[in-house]
Amino acid sequence: METQAADDGTPLDASATSDAPASIGGWEARAADPGYRAAVLDLLGALAYGELSAFERLAEDAKFAPGLVDKAALAKMASNEYHHYQQLHDRLVEVGADPTEVMTPFVEPLENFHRMTAPSDWLEGLVKAYVGDAIATDFYREVAVRLDDDTRDLVLSVSADTGHAQFAVDRVRQAIEEDPRVGGRLALWGRRLMGEALSQAQRVVAERDALSNLLVGGAEVQGFDLVEVGKMFNRITEAHTRRMAALGLAS
Amino acid sequence: METQAADDGTPLDASATSDAPASIGGWEARAADPGYRAAVLDLLGALAYGELSAFERLAEDAKFAPGLVDKAALAKMASNEYHHYQQLHDRLVEVGADPTEVMTPFVEPLENFHRMTAPSDWLEGLVKAYVGDAIATDFYREVAVRLDDDTRDLVLSVSADTGHAQFAVDRVRQAIEEDPRVGGRLALWGRRLMGEALSQAQRVVAERDALSNLLVGGAEVQGFDLVEVGKMFNRITEAHTRRMAALGLAS
Repeated sequence: METQAADDGTPLDASATSDAPASIGGWEARAADPGYRAAVLDLLGALAYGELSAFERLAEDAKFAPGLVDKAALAKMASNEYHHYQQLHDRLVEVGADPTEVMTPFVEPLENFHRMTAPSDWLEGLVKAYVGDAIATDFYREVAVRLDDDTRDLVLSVSADTGHAQFAVDRVRQAIEEDPRVGGRLALWGRRLMGEALSQAQRVVAERDALSNLLVGGAEVQGFDLVEVGKMFNRITEAHTRRMAALGLAS
Repeated sequence: METQAADDGTPLDASATSDAPASIGGWEARAADPGYRAAVLDLLGALAYGELSAFERLAEDAKFAPGLVDKAALAKMASNEYHHYQQLHDRLVEVGADPTEVMTPFVEPLENFHRMTAPSDWLEGLVKAYVGDAIATDFYREVAVRLDDDTRDLVLSVSADTGHAQFAVDRVRQAIEEDPRVGGRLALWGRRLMGEALSQAQRVVAERDALSNLLVGGAEVQGFDLVEVGKMFNRITEAHTRRMAALGLAS
């Protein structure tokens, strides 16, 4: 976390970008509410499949790596994502959920996102890993402040930077320095990534009621406030813009 | 190690299948001999790239997985291979070697092997992971007994079973039970894997003199004894035959 904020120059402090409510207590106290439990399981399921999927994509990108050092760096990031998955999986088992069942609703939206945004080379893969990871991290930190203490700690822990940020920023900046035309192509690519991410996220929000309720106002609020969700997506888009600038790209 | 021996029913005790010489001392004492140092760096380089390559292949196979449980199991094995790679990388740095330089001679033989044996489906991928990992483990254990204590401990540690064995045996046996014709196809596949592995290994032995000397009789022996190398390959082939039988396949 500290690393990413310091490295790409775009600190995104969840408490500054959304209302940071006071603690709502621990998991045991909250999980008695079936709506809250369902929302958290949805969230952990989306996060767990996201990590497994990130593992796969990073491992796939390692094949494009121009050398052994870069290949090993990608393998390390992939392995870190796997460990995050493992933490989420173990937590799901701990609270009596079936990890496969909980992850399944998120397989299709995530696979759609990946199918629509298959990188065609090493640099596109790097930008995708960096931008995709950051968007997901922003989203989960927005949500984390609304959660019980136990779930919040877990979500923040698995959302910690796995080393993408600095690695991607270094490589992409160097490539643009060597050939400025690369910047134009990657800027278009960044816009496409953000568009597809928003489109899939909005689909998930529309289909998963429990999760949506959690997003807009914690478990207490039952109504679905589209304005609030829109504001959250705006904050995430602004952070994306700052990150693209850090890469040396127009967004 | 214990796991693999117990699970697939084919314990391969290095001390039983090759002459187990007495300890030749620690790394510091032996590394003064440039021939010995070169041989060990070759070995660690081959092993390190092998782990990185195994990471990539397992991650690739995860895409074929028929469900989330199998996908996560493959991701876990891949992550374990990455950690083995990290141990070897760190050791190479510790003894003053450049990991990339040391791994480079083994990139082509390993990539050739993988190109010649690209699995066309989930079961072929499983058999390859199981058989390939076991052949590599047998080879490294044969070599380990000839090494200084520090290097031997490291080689045995990174050659420990990463969970392929039982997972692959279970899945392959079940598939053959459901459709016995699968057994014929996979038996052919197993023979092809072994043939390609031997062919690439023999090429490495022919090209890397320091490594070959180590293989046939430790650093003291300078002569290259083809008979001894042949016997070692025979022992590895026999172990392969027993493992194929454990999978329910004729070899």
